[in-house]
Amino acid sequence: MRFTRLLLCLGLAGLLTAPALSAETIDSERASFELETVAEGLKNPWGLAFLPDGSMIVSERAGNLRLVNPKGKLGEPLQGLPNIVVKGQGGLLDVAVDPDYASTGWIFFSYSEPGERGNSTALARARIEGKVLVDVTRIFSQKPKVESNAHFGSRIVFKGDGTLFLTLGDRYSRMDDAQTLDNHHGKVIRINKDGSVPADNPYVNTEGALPEIWSIGHRNMQGAAMHPETGELWSGEHGAQGGDEINIDRAGVNYGWPVVTYGEDYGGGKIGEGFKKEGMETPIYYWLPSLATAGMTFYTGDQFPKWRGDLFVASLRAETLSRLDIEGERVLHEERLLADELGERLRHVVQGPDGYLYLLTDQSDGKIIRLKPAK
Amino acid sequence: MRFTRLLLCLGLAGLLTAPALSAETIDSERASFELETVAEGLKNPWGLAFLPDGSMIVSERAGNLRLVNPKGKLGEPLQGLPNIVVKGQGGLLDVAVDPDYASTGWIFFSYSEPGERGNSTALARARIEGKVLVDVTRIFSQKPKVESNAHFGSRIVFKGDGTLFLTLGDRYSRMDDAQTLDNHHGKVIRINKDGSVPADNPYVNTEGALPEIWSIGHRNMQGAAMHPETGELWSGEHGAQGGDEINIDRAGVNYGWPVVTYGEDYGGGKIGEGFKKEGMETPIYYWLPSLATAGMTFYTGDQFPKWRGDLFVASLRAETLSRLDIEGERVLHEERLLADELGERLRHVVQGPDGYLYLLTDQSDGKIIRLKPAK
Ligand SMILES: [Ca+2]
Ligand SMILES: [Ca+2]
Repeated sequence: MRFTRLLLCLGLAGLLTAPALSAETIDSERASFELETVAEGLKNPWGLAFLPDGSMIVSERAGNLRLVNPKGKLGEPLQGLPNIVVKGQGGLLDVAVDPDYASTGWIFFSYSEPGERGNSTALARARIEGKVLVDVTRIFSQKPKVESNAHFGSRIVFKGDGTLFLTLGDRYSRMDDAQTLDNHHGKVIRINKDGSVPADNPYVNTEGALPEIWSIGHRNMQGAAMHPETGELWSGEHGAQGGDEINIDRAGVNYGWPVVTYGEDYGGGKIGEGFKKEGMETPIYYWLPSLATAGMTFYTGDQFPKWRGDLFVASLRAETLSRLDIEGERVLHEERLLADELGERLRHVVQGPDGYLYLLTDQSDGKIIRLKPAK
Repeated sequence: MRFTRLLLCLGLAGLLTAPALSAETIDSERASFELETVAEGLKNPWGLAFLPDGSMIVSERAGNLRLVNPKGKLGEPLQGLPNIVVKGQGGLLDVAVDPDYASTGWIFFSYSEPGERGNSTALARARIEGKVLVDVTRIFSQKPKVESNAHFGSRIVFKGDGTLFLTLGDRYSRMDDAQTLDNHHGKVIRINKDGSVPADNPYVNTEGALPEIWSIGHRNMQGAAMHPETGELWSGEHGAQGGDEINIDRAGVNYGWPVVTYGEDYGGGKIGEGFKKEGMETPIYYWLPSLATAGMTFYTGDQFPKWRGDLFVASLRAETLSRLDIEGERVLHEERLLADELGERLRHVVQGPDGYLYLLTDQSDGKIIRLKPAK
């Protein structure tokens, strides 16, 4: 990638506002694009979804849910959220719009829910009436609650059959739970949009298993996306001491954490038993050292024809946007975008209805930035 | 990778000889190792193979074949090589030792062969008697000969069933030939060790096809290796304007060059029709920009237990040794070794009988360097 460094060299970067970003063309392997700041002043934005009218709904981890109009004007925080624990990695997390929004009006959001013995990730749905959330219903709550500020997950992905997936972290202090079926730690769950359990979930007939469980052996999946052709869930997972993973999340499969992981032998001690074990699925790709992967999405739009089918993965620590060229279940090639140009932790990447890619920067003065084809 | 830069910082690197290299420990993701110069003073070494007594046979592109004893002492050039065209990328190329050497005494070597209408890659076998090659027999000659100094291939790999593969470049000026069966440009061929054609080759019954052909649609494969478990041929191919590829080379398959390639839109014009086409195989991994990949090998030794099953790929331009973590037919992860420590074009990587990895540096004062576990 080439990028005009002039502004940075002049030391003015910190003073510049949105329009300056868009003046630069970034040439990458398959597209030349510009960055445009759509909105700023968001407190650690975590989730972003589009409503049918083109406006956005964005969650701030600090505990606000806001509408943002297509021009980037922030609405006031919507009233009516449930109690949320805002500490560590916890707070208001993902937000998603029902694919049937036109008829249901539902939005879904995940958050850190307080409870008697600690906290856990919960999922609620609601409707928006003006500046207020109404019909707020908690439809799922991760069990058990524990005292932990870390590894909440939690991305919401609609399967397209009336059910949805929610990714759930291992809460850090309870990593061993990821291997057992009597809890929701380190799991992907699948539920109906009213919170009930689909009859064809893999463990509904397993004694002692929580019926919402779809897959097990995960650490902390802050990224998840539906493959546009296969309809399968792909997830991105923070590794320990390196070893961020991309997995294809299938019913009843064990993804190995904390028994097997690639995150050993790098700046720390040994974790688990090694890289592979019978009965545990190998990821389709991993990063070592860790980028600290977060949100991800498959690109299917018209603005960047050569990116179609590619998987984009935002990263926090590396401050990059990885473009993965996917062929079937293989990653043929990785391009790391924005390694030099942005310098901001990226929490999420979402495709807009306009075919642009939208990023959330993880800052207390966080932004929505979009990638547009260069003029 | 961490590396003690002290010597480089003192500006002494250029003055140091072999023992200094070995004093440094290089910590990588799965192993800590040292570099040790085994031999130097080789003129652009291209191929390296081990004889049962532990000595090496090395080819210099300038047209010498030498024995190198286990301590690194270079023998005099062996006498008796055929006429070789040494120009451009041409010269004496790969060398291989018959898996049945104990009973046959054969070595095989590939080279640029002169002819009336130009040159092409040929393959010969011979026996070593003292300082002389005897029973020198050309067993294959690429057709047609053309005036070109480029893209000769050519790696020799034994299939394990009494046949061998030879990778053949498209000669640069004849890239379109890679798609047709009436020539050996841009092909992998498979022959018996006496040059005859195996009856089960894919095109033996195809009218007008050269019967040696195994696979088509290649550009310039300077790397090839037998997968230690599947017994399939994997090859590494220089891409055009980027787009170096790893392919699994199967009988009768078309690998796309020059119709489809990833090497477009990067510092140059469009090549071919794009990335994919029905009937043409997608690589399992590619590099963009190009590293200029050369020799490659699967590691199966005992010295680096965590490298077992990994594919190592030497690169000329990038001056790196890529370690590819392979799962089935997927590349899960790439680590680029030696990006900072060596600074030499790498032509080849070979596993020694001692379990060390041996590198050839592509210099007029070229070296054999080995990777040993750090003490
Ligand atoms: Ca895993
Ligand atoms: Ca190809």
